[in-house]
Order: sequence, then C-alpha cells, then structure tokens
Amino acid sequence: MSEQWASFSLDLHLAIDRRQGLRGGLERALREAVQRGQLSPGTRMPSSRALAQELGIARGTVSQVYEQLAAEGYLLARPRSGVRVAPQPGPASGPVLPPAPSFRAPFDGHDLRPGLPDLSLFPRGPWLAATRQVLQSTPHAAFGYGDPTGHADLRTALADYLGRARGVLTTPEHIIVCAGYNHALQILCQALSRVGSTIAFEDPALPDYPALAANAGLRVTRIPVDRDGLVVGELGDEVAAVTTPSHQFPLGVTLSPRRRIELLDWARRTGSVVLEDDYDGEFRYDRQPVGALQALAPDLVVYTGTVSKTIAPALRIGWIVAPTHLVPALRDVLRFDETHLNVIEQLVLASLIRGGELDRHLRRCRSRYRHRRDHLGRAVATHLPGARLSGIAAGLHAVLTLPGPAGAEPDLLAHLTAHGVAVDGLSTFHHDPRASPLGLVVGYATPPQHSYDSAVTALTEAIRTAPHQP
Amino acid sequence: MSEQWASFSLDLHLAIDRRQGLRGGLERALREAVQRGQLSPGTRMPSSRALAQELGIARGTVSQVYEQLAAEGYLLARPRSGVRVAPQPGPASGPVLPPAPSFRAPFDGHDLRPGLPDLSLFPRGPWLAATRQVLQSTPHAAFGYGDPTGHADLRTALADYLGRARGVLTTPEHIIVCAGYNHALQILCQALSRVGSTIAFEDPALPDYPALAANAGLRVTRIPVDRDGLVVGELGDEVAAVTTPSHQFPLGVTLSPRRRIELLDWARRTGSVVLEDDYDGEFRYDRQPVGALQALAPDLVVYTGTVSKTIAPALRIGWIVAPTHLVPALRDVLRFDETHLNVIEQLVLASLIRGGELDRHLRRCRSRYRHRRDHLGRAVATHLPGARLSGIAAGLHAVLTLPGPAGAEPDLLAHLTAHGVAVDGLSTFHHDPRASPLGLVVGYATPPQHSYDSAVTALTEAIRTAPHQP
Repeated sequence: MSEQWASFSLDLHLAIDRRQGLRGGLERALREAVQRGQLSPGTRMPSSRALAQELGIARGTVSQVYEQLAAEGYLLARPRSGVRVAPQPGPASGPVLPPAPSFRAPFDGHDLRPGLPDLSLFPRGPWLAATRQVLQSTPHAAFGYGDPTGHADLRTALADYLGRARGVLTTPEHIIVCAGYNHALQILCQALSRVGSTIAFEDPALPDYPALAANAGLRVTRIPVDRDGLVVGELGDEVAAVTTPSHQFPLGVTLSPRRRIELLDWARRTGSVVLEDDYDGEFRYDRQPVGALQALAPDLVVYTGTVSKTIAPALRIGWIVAPTHLVPALRDVLRFDETHLNVIEQLVLASLIRGGELDRHLRRCRSRYRHRRDHLGRAVATHLPGARLSGIAAGLHAVLTLPGPAGAEPDLLAHLTAHGVAVDGLSTFHHDPRASPLGLVVGYATPPQHSYDSAVTALTEAIRTAPHQP
Repeated sequence: MSEQWASFSLDLHLAIDRRQGLRGGLERALREAVQRGQLSPGTRMPSSRALAQELGIARGTVSQVYEQLAAEGYLLARPRSGVRVAPQPGPASGPVLPPAPSFRAPFDGHDLRPGLPDLSLFPRGPWLAATRQVLQSTPHAAFGYGDPTGHADLRTALADYLGRARGVLTTPEHIIVCAGYNHALQILCQALSRVGSTIAFEDPALPDYPALAANAGLRVTRIPVDRDGLVVGELGDEVAAVTTPSHQFPLGVTLSPRRRIELLDWARRTGSVVLEDDYDGEFRYDRQPVGALQALAPDLVVYTGTVSKTIAPALRIGWIVAPTHLVPALRDVLRFDETHLNVIEQLVLASLIRGGELDRHLRRCRSRYRHRRDHLGRAVATHLPGARLSGIAAGLHAVLTLPGPAGAEPDLLAHLTAHGVAVDGLSTFHHDPRASPLGLVVGYATPPQHSYDSAVTALTEAIRTAPHQP
C-alpha cells in the first residue's frame, strides 16, 4: 500500500483553492472529497510527510488539517494503522440506477440453452503462456494505433487456419478481424447499405441478427429452410443472403450440394453476395466433411467466423473473409470503425494457431462434445420414443421435435423451468412462431461436465411428465 | 509438432470423394489441397500410420498415396524428416490486393506527431502479472457472453479511479466500457441521433471526429476556440457540444471557469448535453489541477476517456460516463453493439487500477513527459526566439506558433520531412485551413526516450533553416 500512496497527490484530484490559504484550501478540498465519495470510507490517507512533500507545503500544515478533519468526523487516526477515511452516514452520492441487464441472465438449474461452448474447457494455461511470449517479444511500436483490418500476424495465421481447417480460399489481405459476429454483421450491413437496400435471413434463425440489420437501415426478408437448407428459389433481389450452410441454426440441416450451386447461381445472376455464417463449422462428428461454401466461389461469398464456439464468447474475436470486390467498401467502413481488438489478444490468438494449440484444443472439445451428443441421443431414444432428435451431425446443439400441438410450447417450457431445466423453444427462432412445430433447441455443450448427465436426465424426465406428452 | 499432426484429419478439411475409391479419393483430395494452397510448401505431413488411423483406412493405402504424390512432385519424402509438401511453382492462388493502409504509417526519422504516448513505457510486467492472476481466479462463467456495458469489476474500478483522479461523480451503473474514443463517439452519435440532428465540434479539432459524426447521419457545426476555450456564445440548437475542456486539442488552452458555467447554462437551457473528451486529463504538470467538467453537472455532461494516452492505444479500452437520463438510450444502442472487449483485458485493467499499478505507471509517465516538455521549452527559447510554444501546462503535445505567413505551412512541412522530422501542421485541424496561423503540433511523447533529445534538436535546426524563418 505504501507505494500506492506515494503517488497520492498526483492521482487524487484535489482542487485546492489557495485563496483560502494553504491550510484552509487543503482542509476544504479533503472534506469535499470525502463528502462527494471521491475518498471512500476505509481509504488509507498518505502520511502527512508524503502529502506535504507532494504538495510542496509544510508537514505541520498537513498534520493540522488531518487533526481538524478527524475532529469533524471525516478522518480516523489510529496508532500504527495511520489515518483513514471514516465511515460516512447517509445515502450514496450518485443517482440510483438498476444494473444493466446482462446479455443472458444465468439460470439457476440445468442450463441446456444453445449458444455456449463448455466454458470450463477455456485454455487458461496456453493463453497465459502465449501472453507471456507476446509481451516478451512484441516490439514497442505494436502498442500504437494498428492496422484497422487487424494485426497482420493474426490475419496471416487465420488465412492459414481457415484454409486447412475449413477449406476457405483467401489471403491475409481479404481478412478483417472484428469483435465477434455481431460486429461483423454491423460492418457488413454498413458496407452493403451503400449498394442495396434489402437483405435476406433464414427462417428460422437467431432473431437478433435480422433485428440488427433492420436497425442498420436495411429491409429484411425471411427465406424458409427445408431439409436441404435455405430454399433458394424464394430469394429475390436482395443485396445479400445470410445463411448457415454447414449446420443451419437452429435446425441443424446441411445446405445440399444442389442448393449450394443454386445459391451461387442466384448471387452471380443478381450481383448479390452470400454471407456464410460458419458459426460452428469446426465441430463435425461424422466422417463426411462439410467444407466452407466460400471455397466454391470466393468472389461471391463473404465468409464469417468467430472463436465464440471454439474457445469462448468473452474473447470477442471474429473475422470476415471478403471477396476482392467488397474489400474497398469494407475498408472504407473501417475508417470510422477502427480495430476494436486489443493487440495482445490478437497476437495471442495468432500464436495459439501457429503453435498448434488451437488444433489441440479443438480436438479436446470435439471429443467431449461428441460424447455428450451420443449420450443425449441414447437418452432420447430410450426415454422419449415419440421424440425425434435432429441436427446432430455437427455443432453444439440439437433440435428435439416432440409430438403434440405447436401451441403447447409455452406450457412445456414453463413445466421444464419448474423442473429446473432451461432450453430454448423452437418457435423463438421462427419469424412466425405459429409456423413452428413443437420442439426444443438443446445446447448440449452448455452445462459443466460434472452435471451434464444429470442435466440430460432432468430434461428427459421433465418432458416425460409434461402435460400433452406421451 | 507430433501432437499437432495427431489431429491432422480433424483440422485439415479433406473432401475425400469415396466414389473414386479410398486411395483415389485421398490422392485427389491431397493433390487439390496442395494446388489450392491449403497445404503450404514445407508443411510436414502426418505419418502414414497417423493419417491412416484418423481416416480409418489401411496404412498401406496412405503410403501408396504419399508415394504417388511424391512422384508427381507434390510431396517430398526425406529420411528422418518425414514427408513434407514440396515447393510449388506458379503464382499464389488468391487474387492480389494491396495490404490495408495502416491507421498511421510509421515515419522513418524523428516522429514528433501528436497522439501517441511513449510506447516503450508499456507496463509489460504488471500486465502479465495481472493476466496470470485473472486467469487463475476468474470463474468459468465469465468466459460466456457478458454484460454489454462492460464487466462490473472494471466499471466499479473505473468509477473509483475517475472519482479520485479526475473528480468525476458517478456510479458503476452510469459507466459504459467501450473500445476507445472512436467507439464511444459511434455509440453516442447513435443514441443522440434519436433525439436531435446536429452536433457541435470545436474548431480546430481532430478532423476524424466530425467526419465520424457526419457519417453517423448527424449534421455537424464547428464552434471556434479562443484563449478561454470553446466560444460558447456561438452554440445554437445542437443536441450536443463536443469539447476538450482540460486541454483543448490541439491548441492546449483550458476552458475558463466562466465559459464552463456558460456552457452548462447553454446545455440546461436548450436540453442539450456536453460531451467532455478528457483525452489527456491525467497529464497535468503544474500545481493547479483542472478537474473534469463533469463534476460540475453530472446530469448535463457525458464524460469520455480512454487508456490510449495513459497506457497504449493498442489496448482499445475507453469509457463513457453518462448522465442518468441518457443511460436507457445508450443501453438500447448496446443491444446491437454488445461489449467489444475481451473479458480478460477488462479484468486485467480492473486489477491494475485496484492494486495501484496504474497510479504508479502514471507517475512514471508524468515524470518523463514533464522532463520532455521542459526540454522542448528550453530548446525553443534558445534556438527559436521568434516562435511561441503554447499548451504546455498539460498533455503530450504542444503548439509551436511561428512567424510567417499561414500559407507557408506545406513548404515548411516538406522541409521538415526532408530533414527527417515529422510533425503535424496546425492547419490540418482547422475546418478552414486558411484560418490557421503558421504553426506546428508537436507530440513530445512520441519518440523513444533514447532519441528524444536529438529529435528536438533536429526539429529546431530544421525550422531555423526553413525558408521564411528568421
């Protein structure tokens, strides 16, 4: 603590009005600092000698001020523990505001909502080791203002990684590093709104993204999804179509080879682009690989991905891989939306990719999630014979379709919540909730490992005892 | 390397068409991966045993494929170094694009442009120590999606720090953590455009910010600055006035007490807000402290700050301290612009603030910058008797006004560049460059410590030998 207080007068803003004399001015400044909460109760004050030296006044003056304020009840002087700010009566100084609602309120029970990886797998050791290496080796200049498209080391590592892991065909100059998928979509909507006015989203989809595009001033159309993925024939003159071809969110279907060709034909014919949201492409559990759509037509597809499912959402790291013709417009947007990423985390991620740590981490995750998926599949087959589990070839979630009327979803969800289980209702993701079958979206990566089996048991038990269920 | 390749088939996307038989399919997939650059020259291939195991095929099949591809020149097999991808002829696969222009091109000489702290002071050791502590102690749940206004620990630490160091009166619930000042201004412009259409900026100012506001759809007015700071009487019905009251950028004047009162009166009368850009408020070199304007009227002032001058721009960390009435609109904007900050860096900064490391760091910086400022002042007084150095009471830059016609600036800057010195011309910051006196904005924190004195010598020498200079 002593070092901290050596810098006291520098970092405590004390407005000393010297017209009242040094003593009067200091006394008043300290009194107000306590009254206004600038100096919190319990805070240790600097020694009279240190403060006197910092302010360039006599030590005796400071001692007198401390004595006066102790007499007034603002300070407490105790032998050996020095002078501290006394507890102050009355309400806190600022106006009262509720805390911001957190992005997703935690659930006190078995959380099987989709969207999260198993956070206990976060590679703390490798992250720290890479941070040490980056802080030891990065030149000073890297701590200034950087390349708005992201640090070249990270873009180079990503071009390599996306090429071998996802088949993406690109160069570091086509990559824009951004702060997650929301940020990627913000940047893309700004660039696209210069060349068109309408954007297509899948239906069903996560409702946040169409809402984001509408907020950015684009008109939104919704295109249905069937067993082959996006129904391309329903597209019109949109400037872009957003799709999740590897593992549709939430249904889990794969865009069929025929539809891929049709979709790229549509883009070529209408001068549009396809936005490929490859949100969980790294997690494929069968032998048949599904590569990025981007590889078929790097000039027509904007590829996006993040580390939110592979490492953790709280890292806020994502990327856009753009066709050559879109790069100037995107760089123009970045004029006002410079890199949002700490250079340290950019270099840490680049190091984890280059050193093979990310691959090792993904292998650990894949193994765990595959076991979880298999366990869920067995539990559903055994205990819920009337239900159908789909979308299980990949990703971190599956759709559980149940017999019963679609309108039963709110009651079912309430019943599950009452039994300590949180999942998402399938209708949440439909533009028209009435168009949804009765179903649940189950995020099997979300619970901690030690309680996963009991989470699945709680889920199947709660469904079996729900009203309207066989 | 061996572990990395154990996960080969998982993280190299190989589209094996099994209709061609396993051997033919694998051969073709690997050939295409090399052709397309997915496998770069020099890459070490997995052993035939490892790859066979991953793909569930016979080891002999993989060996035959490797032999075939070596015969075709795609792979190189060497004793003891295993099988590697062979160098490939011909041009790179992707289309050619220039690298993105970096935000601020490095200058090969004495860089005295304003806007940067001394990057060699970056607290690498404390940053690493805090990262270790954060990674050891943070609960798993913190790695999920977080509070869009920033982690509560950081907002609490900032409320405390801004209170004691800058006199800001606030609570953690009034703080929004963001990715630097550009991002803060983006968020504020979005929120303000719902209640008004025009925003005022100082003239002179950094031109990026008015441009950002115009790009966000607001009409921009420019308000002159005199020796007392912003000329408040020129304000009209703007929804907000952006100002740098502690140390005007670039002129370096302080908003006078009378103008502070007038400015707050204007905001109260017109229902507007004042945006206080406290970009270098921590660096004050004289005894007279200049506290945040916000403390006079927390209900009328939006206070913004960053770590870009105190630690480093590459951290991309800033904050908005909002009046209570603006908080709902700002949180609404954040619905589509969630936290852009890695939770690790947020907790690291909170830890550095709480543990007193930031205070210690600021003390080191202040001492260094004060010496540099003094040295610059002596050099100008000695070698440039006709020049005037102003704005030196605070911050990281000063304005050097020179005798001579304003129109001489381009020639002067070209002369300085030719003599290996980069500074900014004062006219760059004026809305109408012809309204600027002949002057230079000198960032005295920018050069590395070992070359600072020679940078100043080079600057004064180059000015003395410039055309039109006495």
